[in-house]
Amino acid sequence: MKPPTKTPVSDYLAQLVGQSVNAIDTPGLVIDLDAMKRNLGRMAEFARKHDVRWRPHAKTHKSVQLAKLQMQAGAVGICVQKTAEAEVMVDGGVYNIYISNEVVASPKLARVAALAHRIAAENGQLSIAVDSAEGVNRLAQAMNEARSQAAAGAVVDVFVEIDVGQGRCGVPPGKAAIALVHEIRKHPALRFAGLQAYHGKAQHLRSAQQRRDAIAIVADDVIYTRRVIEAEGVPVDLVTGAGTGSMVCEAASGVFGELQPGSFLFMDADYAQNERDPAQPQFEHALFVKTQVISSRDDHAVCDAGHKSHAIDSGLPLVRAFDSECELEYFNGGDEHGILRPAGGSRRVPAIGRMLWLIPGHCDPTVNLYDFMIGVAGGLRKGTVERIIRVDARGAAT
Amino acid sequence: MKPPTKTPVSDYLAQLVGQSVNAIDTPGLVIDLDAMKRNLGRMAEFARKHDVRWRPHAKTHKSVQLAKLQMQAGAVGICVQKTAEAEVMVDGGVYNIYISNEVVASPKLARVAALAHRIAAENGQLSIAVDSAEGVNRLAQAMNEARSQAAAGAVVDVFVEIDVGQGRCGVPPGKAAIALVHEIRKHPALRFAGLQAYHGKAQHLRSAQQRRDAIAIVADDVIYTRRVIEAEGVPVDLVTGAGTGSMVCEAASGVFGELQPGSFLFMDADYAQNERDPAQPQFEHALFVKTQVISSRDDHAVCDAGHKSHAIDSGLPLVRAFDSECELEYFNGGDEHGILRPAGGSRRVPAIGRMLWLIPGHCDPTVNLYDFMIGVAGGLRKGTVERIIRVDARGAAT
Repeated sequence: MKPPTKTPVSDYLAQLVGQSVNAIDTPGLVIDLDAMKRNLGRMAEFARKHDVRWRPHAKTHKSVQLAKLQMQAGAVGICVQKTAEAEVMVDGGVYNIYISNEVVASPKLARVAALAHRIAAENGQLSIAVDSAEGVNRLAQAMNEARSQAAAGAVVDVFVEIDVGQGRCGVPPGKAAIALVHEIRKHPALRFAGLQAYHGKAQHLRSAQQRRDAIAIVADDVIYTRRVIEAEGVPVDLVTGAGTGSMVCEAASGVFGELQPGSFLFMDADYAQNERDPAQPQFEHALFVKTQVISSRDDHAVCDAGHKSHAIDSGLPLVRAFDSECELEYFNGGDEHGILRPAGGSRRVPAIGRMLWLIPGHCDPTVNLYDFMIGVAGGLRKGTVERIIRVDARGAAT
Repeated sequence: MKPPTKTPVSDYLAQLVGQSVNAIDTPGLVIDLDAMKRNLGRMAEFARKHDVRWRPHAKTHKSVQLAKLQMQAGAVGICVQKTAEAEVMVDGGVYNIYISNEVVASPKLARVAALAHRIAAENGQLSIAVDSAEGVNRLAQAMNEARSQAAAGAVVDVFVEIDVGQGRCGVPPGKAAIALVHEIRKHPALRFAGLQAYHGKAQHLRSAQQRRDAIAIVADDVIYTRRVIEAEGVPVDLVTGAGTGSMVCEAASGVFGELQPGSFLFMDADYAQNERDPAQPQFEHALFVKTQVISSRDDHAVCDAGHKSHAIDSGLPLVRAFDSECELEYFNGGDEHGILRPAGGSRRVPAIGRMLWLIPGHCDPTVNLYDFMIGVAGGLRKGTVERIIRVDARGAAT
């Protein structure tokens, strides 16, 4: 018999469905589907209770299947950060998309315009953020060029981004926004849709009071900016922003009509370090990297997941051994290794072959390392692989 | 005319070859082919001069095309860290591969055994590292099971890893290695090939003297371990290890028969911070992330490359604007953004649309974020896209 001549990766995936979690190769990105669905339900309930729209950020999961699941649960649509992510979502049949980021290159804006027309043909809506007159004009030009080629016209919803403390993109709150609003309103293919006000850093302030204080300033900035725009006779239909870490504050402020949380679906180790606001839903960890011990000594073990298997920009992963006698702390072992030492009074070093579960420090860039996520039902200890979820927009960075 | 219905990513790539660097979309991973070829030539010359074999680490580039280029330049083969990387390389026709890492799961070892037979059929050689009797026995069992299915037998070269200061995998130097050597020699499908002695941390010690001191201890550990093994009447044919940062020391030690550098090909920002040893070849930066400014204010600009576009585990990227009046420092702006502030006495904030080049802090995990690298000849300012180089083993983590 001849040896096999091709690597059977897709066979592995196809055969995995219906099998025990034990069959999952390591390192492997695993979703606890039960926990994820509970997170989704809690988010939908939170939005209903606060009478606010939610438009979850697909930069977290980059998956058409999960975007559709979110919209079935009541989300009005999705956010993305990149034109290429929007393209993947439209290719997959998601037609309500907000690119919550600035796009300024003309070749990219031509792609945005093409998407706007494809989405309009499906009775959906494309939106985008801007923070410069140059960006507005280039977008309008791209829309005009696309319009002349397409059967039907389309109108892009344009949000003016204001910098409410993130110190990144956005115009300063107040008068600077007015010029952009007028610029947008010059172009028939663009509609001024409201304000983008996102303070990502505030979400990682550890105490609930710190986050409330930061978002109180955000709300003030939004109210001020809205007032100066409305004083020009232009309504501000919607204010959109917020993320998992601070959304209780934005929701309570009364000025946000739409929330953009992404991480709530998976809950990473970093967010779990925040003091929980009493009003915050109890989101659970639902994303894990399954790993196994490949080397073991007296004082430490080494597992087969390093930072090519999970992102460490927001800290190292937590370790779940599902064994009260084996608590472990993860230390950086490089690209392909993790170093595990006994922690919390435990002295047990796991043996070679032992399976462990890592809770990534930051889910979004972790997901971006994988082509697929393995959905498990029935829990991580004894569950079954229910389905494979493609990370359709993995690497879609342009 | 109907709007396009599919996203033309592959069209973009196909059309890029022959075009100016200006046509490269951002963020995009770009190789300065001229610099890379000079690095390759310097490495080959260094190995010739020191009469040492070189087996570059393919975990850096994960590319079949570049692995073959390295072997054409004189490399004896390649190293990989993962079984899945080895599979991709064998699928691509690379048949001299060393898995310089421990593999212990039986399903993975079945894949290793299958590779051993495929490689043997091509008159190549597969090697692997071990640090436990369990690992040796499971490998032997997998080889026996594969042998009974395959037309021809194959022998895997097995290196015993000793921990020479990295504090990760490996047995302690000295007697602990003997038991493993005897264990390996029990199995006809395994051949004891020598010692793996890799001290990754030593490569990042900033002063040349610190690195020399660290590798002097490595050499002592190797000599001691070799002596206790040879005292048992077993020859130690080869000692393999070293990386770009410290390889001048390993080469000078006289105990290493083979070097495993990976980063020399691209040279990341982190290695460039080392004080150069006078004996070290002058490797140049050859890997860049092309990015552009999407937002610009008085005090800072924002570019479209964050840590989903380059790895930040070894520090933030350096910025090349190719403009003496525009020196910039990169600050972390999150997953999709970089924040750029004037530096080095410069006060110029780059305008919206301005193209810039980032030198990643760490090349290996940066490459792992991309499906392809864009090879440019003639320099980054005025060059031409010569070829697209697939990152064949991107995400091959199992």
